[in-house]
Amino acid sequence: MPDDTAEAWPTPTVDVAELTRILDGRYAEVRDAVRKALPSYASVLEDAETMSRDQFQERVKEVVLELADTGATGMGFPEEYGGGGDLGASIAAFETLGYGDLSVLVKVGVQFGLFGGAILQLGTKVHHDTYLADLVTGRLMGCFAMTETGHGSNVQALGTVATYDQDAAEFVVTTTRPDACKDYIGNAARHARVAVVFAQLEVRGQGHGVHALVVPLRDEQGNLLPGIRIEDDGPKMGLNGVDNGRIWFDGVRVPREALLNRFADVTEDGTYVSEIESPGRRFFTMLGTLVQGRVSVGAASISAAKVALTIAVHYGLRRRQFEATSEETEELILDYGLHQRRLFPLLAHTYALHFAQEVLTDHLHDAFSGTVTDEESRRLLESRAAGTKALATWLATRTIQECREACGGAGYLSVNRFAALKADTDVFATFEGDNNVLLQLVAKGLLTDYASDFEDLDQLGMVKFVAGLAVETVLERTRAHKLLQGIRDALPGGGDSWDTDTGLLDPGYHLAMYRFREEHLLGGVARRLKRGVDAGMNPGEVFSRVQDHVIAAARAHVERLVLEAFVEKVAAMEDGDLKLALNLVCDLHALTGIEADRAWFMEHGRLTSQRAKAITREVGALCRRIRPVAAELVDAFAVPRPLLRAPALVGEGTGG
Amino acid sequence: MPDDTAEAWPTPTVDVAELTRILDGRYAEVRDAVRKALPSYASVLEDAETMSRDQFQERVKEVVLELADTGATGMGFPEEYGGGGDLGASIAAFETLGYGDLSVLVKVGVQFGLFGGAILQLGTKVHHDTYLADLVTGRLMGCFAMTETGHGSNVQALGTVATYDQDAAEFVVTTTRPDACKDYIGNAARHARVAVVFAQLEVRGQGHGVHALVVPLRDEQGNLLPGIRIEDDGPKMGLNGVDNGRIWFDGVRVPREALLNRFADVTEDGTYVSEIESPGRRFFTMLGTLVQGRVSVGAASISAAKVALTIAVHYGLRRRQFEATSEETEELILDYGLHQRRLFPLLAHTYALHFAQEVLTDHLHDAFSGTVTDEESRRLLESRAAGTKALATWLATRTIQECREACGGAGYLSVNRFAALKADTDVFATFEGDNNVLLQLVAKGLLTDYASDFEDLDQLGMVKFVAGLAVETVLERTRAHKLLQGIRDALPGGGDSWDTDTGLLDPGYHLAMYRFREEHLLGGVARRLKRGVDAGMNPGEVFSRVQDHVIAAARAHVERLVLEAFVEKVAAMEDGDLKLALNLVCDLHALTGIEADRAWFMEHGRLTSQRAKAITREVGALCRRIRPVAAELVDAFAVPRPLLRAPALVGEGTGG
Repeated sequence: MPDDTAEAWPTPTVDVAELTRILDGRYAEVRDAVRKALPSYASVLEDAETMSRDQFQERVKEVVLELADTGATGMGFPEEYGGGGDLGASIAAFETLGYGDLSVLVKVGVQFGLFGGAILQLGTKVHHDTYLADLVTGRLMGCFAMTETGHGSNVQALGTVATYDQDAAEFVVTTTRPDACKDYIGNAARHARVAVVFAQLEVRGQGHGVHALVVPLRDEQGNLLPGIRIEDDGPKMGLNGVDNGRIWFDGVRVPREALLNRFADVTEDGTYVSEIESPGRRFFTMLGTLVQGRVSVGAASISAAKVALTIAVHYGLRRRQFEATSEETEELILDYGLHQRRLFPLLAHTYALHFAQEVLTDHLHDAFSGTVTDEESRRLLESRAAGTKALATWLATRTIQECREACGGAGYLSVNRFAALKADTDVFATFEGDNNVLLQLVAKGLLTDYASDFEDLDQLGMVKFVAGLAVETVLERTRAHKLLQGIRDALPGGGDSWDTDTGLLDPGYHLAMYRFREEHLLGGVARRLKRGVDAGMNPGEVFSRVQDHVIAAARAHVERLVLEAFVEKVAAMEDGDLKLALNLVCDLHALTGIEADRAWFMEHGRLTSQRAKAITREVGALCRRIRPVAAELVDAFAVPRPLLRAPALVGEGTGG
Repeated sequence: MPDDTAEAWPTPTVDVAELTRILDGRYAEVRDAVRKALPSYASVLEDAETMSRDQFQERVKEVVLELADTGATGMGFPEEYGGGGDLGASIAAFETLGYGDLSVLVKVGVQFGLFGGAILQLGTKVHHDTYLADLVTGRLMGCFAMTETGHGSNVQALGTVATYDQDAAEFVVTTTRPDACKDYIGNAARHARVAVVFAQLEVRGQGHGVHALVVPLRDEQGNLLPGIRIEDDGPKMGLNGVDNGRIWFDGVRVPREALLNRFADVTEDGTYVSEIESPGRRFFTMLGTLVQGRVSVGAASISAAKVALTIAVHYGLRRRQFEATSEETEELILDYGLHQRRLFPLLAHTYALHFAQEVLTDHLHDAFSGTVTDEESRRLLESRAAGTKALATWLATRTIQECREACGGAGYLSVNRFAALKADTDVFATFEGDNNVLLQLVAKGLLTDYASDFEDLDQLGMVKFVAGLAVETVLERTRAHKLLQGIRDALPGGGDSWDTDTGLLDPGYHLAMYRFREEHLLGGVARRLKRGVDAGMNPGEVFSRVQDHVIAAARAHVERLVLEAFVEKVAAMEDGDLKLALNLVCDLHALTGIEADRAWFMEHGRLTSQRAKAITREVGALCRRIRPVAAELVDAFAVPRPLLRAPALVGEGTGG
């Protein structure tokens, strides 16, 4: 068995604190503050197991209120209302809260991200003055009533209606169909006193599409107001500290000012006014302002994966089973090739998504602080947020599962955290948009060159639009051609034979492969859509048949963005051991990505079977190289020790 | 988009009752009896969510006792002790119990399979007379105390010791190290009055390896006996109706007759006697008699997957989202290509594993009813049980996860069953042997031609053994060469170019591909092991590096067995619509298996990139062909309606 290239290199020494500093980036201070605050609430992790749902939901509420007092949850609100005035910092704080109990995290997300975010982004000064100061402290709890039993992904088809009554200058909010009750609404079952309700707005008999209104649900004593019916959603797989519920509205009257009127308003005399003419455009502009929800879910998923990896890697460094290299001592399980193969690629992907998330957070911050204001950037941000959320949540699910199995039976005991991690994060793939639907939106943006608003997934329209263009035009418009230029630029000598002549550990090679795949998949989708329509098939049927290609193209796009973020981060680092170590991690991330899709690369002439096998060998070699620094790589996540629990798995002294 | 071959065929009509009859096979009566009994206990599914752990564990115990009264749980015991005298029937009954609450299932497994099985298989008449009648009724609850905190997979290294005290004619049982306490032991925390304890037997200062003894834990009032300490394992991810615990023994004395002495005994004067000379062989013969545990876990996993698929497929036939093929109506989500792609291959794999499990159950029955007695058959049975358990449990985890995501946010509510299905089945990949360890055992059996006992995984020995042979000899001994002969026999014209000239839907082609892969992977493992040892590497290090190939070879072997079982089942059916339908399912199973591993086939010259792409297209076409009969395919599992719960997802009237 000949030694592989990577193996000849020296093992880097990893300074954990320094690596943490790199991971923490510009929000190190905020992250540290949350890390310091969280251990006081470590007991919530146990409460989740021992308390009844009722008790636990009250306990989680208390913790959320205490966190609000520390300022950690209000970073994203304007300072004049008691916030921190820094949206990027609020995402970093939320990400770090992902190390703790996830019911607390989600309740924070509901109260400050969804409810607070809607008031801030969709409302105007009157709403800000009325609600923000109180909601930032948590004195006023609210909920975000968008999803209905019958409609989650397709928000434009909601069945709740708000009709303007001109005589009373009020809106009348009504649940019009059995499947139009608001469902899965966090904070609704117990604590919300008001709701931001998304409803079809009707003025003078004319529909204007979905708009948001503030509707009071309960009085100060917590009694339901007239016309409101609320039902608990009952026990859930996880997140049982969050009080999700269903809400029915029976002709509930709210004043005209209840309409969150930043983008559209109804005058007293019943005239609908908006600066945005197109109803679709208006709706998607509103939705677009809520993008921070998706950014937050992605961030929290990555944190949950980090917790799981920290436990599993340390367990692999304590647990021995079977004699292997010696007759006397059983082998550390992390010294088994298979165990490395199971954990290290997931560790590498988690690093990659961490840095991709950092870029995304920066873009979000720039867009919402007014640094960047053009519409194209906004759509790119929405696309990037959706795609990163999908990849991060799926990665978390996979990572937590593999880490749990890598801890054997012990991983099944609640005290070792995997039970809650698995159960609580499972819904992340679904909420803030089903991952597959989100990837379709990403693909639509790519295929139409962001010609329409992000959420406007009209499949028929998209298919017809693409079918109306020449494939070359699609590629031109999708900037996929720029990718190919990028391939040549990244490699020496114009890179004409980059797929055979470059070293397997050359980041230029990795980027070229990811870019080629994206470009080719997008072109393929365009071709298939055109061919189907040209053959006279129903456009919906065409879409259905091409759907898995659509998802694959979107995925390839987001994976390329993730890889670029990681490669650029490492390239910008000062030379030294840390750069060497992160280079290994980046190589492993990139190569396992190519390896996982090597069938596709072979099918498309970009990988010989010889080179494909060489990649698999190189992945094994990289794992062996990472093994000596695996503990440092997870310790740099700096998950506070009390949050790891799992004393039997990781020992008492481990962790940040 | 040209139409695919499969699409030109007519859609079969599926008679659900008739398909159920085929699935139920020879144990239809037993399965029906359990199906009739289960709905009375459907309320346990809700109790799991609403009761405290204490209450729920008592409730589950009650249900187990009531089920014992029906005779469903005692099928595998001799009739003279109140059993049914039919081991195959007992597996079928257990499999069907997998439709219900899984704490009940696992407690049944612990009491009757593990505890009862150990008494029956490892004990002799005195033990049978003392315990069987009472344990069959559940009057005597017991536990199976094998796993320790420090050792699960490597049972030979257990730290509990039983020393023979000749003067008293007693064994003294002691927990010798902190990590030698028995751990995760079902029934231990509350209900077991006795335990079958696995301990290192020491007689006259000499160790004889691990043996099993019956040790009383509690008196009739449930008080712990002297020298016994028991601790609750605490809340778990799932299965909280089972009282798992840790047990410490502090010099506990049991009479000489406590030793389960079917394979070895200690005479009164302290002489160790056994008909099996080799200690390793003796131990593995004992373990081998407990194979039904693994067969049972595999069976239950398949049932859990069936429940998940039934819910998800029916949800896909009710839920609509987004206009696609028509402007007026939203599309059924099961009509989306991606949704079919997500669910149907898993449905096909579940069918395949069902039939593979049927073959395995038959082999088990034959071995234990004395029809088949040779040692080789026994080892083949153990290998097959281990491999099927690994594949079935992983498939269940994957299927339940995908089905949950395919039901969106609704899938997250406990009322819709996925919460419990996920949490309860998660440990199946770990218990009765970690899946990866089991696959290593399978590989070892293949590589050594079952020369040694099944569980005897001495990696050093195995590596040295294989390294000592020529690769050809390994292939000769592993019967892999028979596979290649099988390839030629299965195809017309000697099948010299079967990988390019046969139709994609030809079962002969599928079998040839699966057989080629198995043969090639095994040869590759042998070559790599030899090369490493020849190069002077430490054999343990060699094993570690080849470990993922070892697992891949074992997996390929079991997948081949599974495919053969399915192909043979369908081939033996009478011509007609049902055969047509199952042929589609079998094709989808086989082709998605090849598709998933198409990179490997391309790397090894057995698939051109053109043909690989054609397979992907064919899979899409098969999914569209299966769509019209999808409801019937899941309805044939005949999961009793009350056990599905999920009224909002599947409607009130669905299910058997």
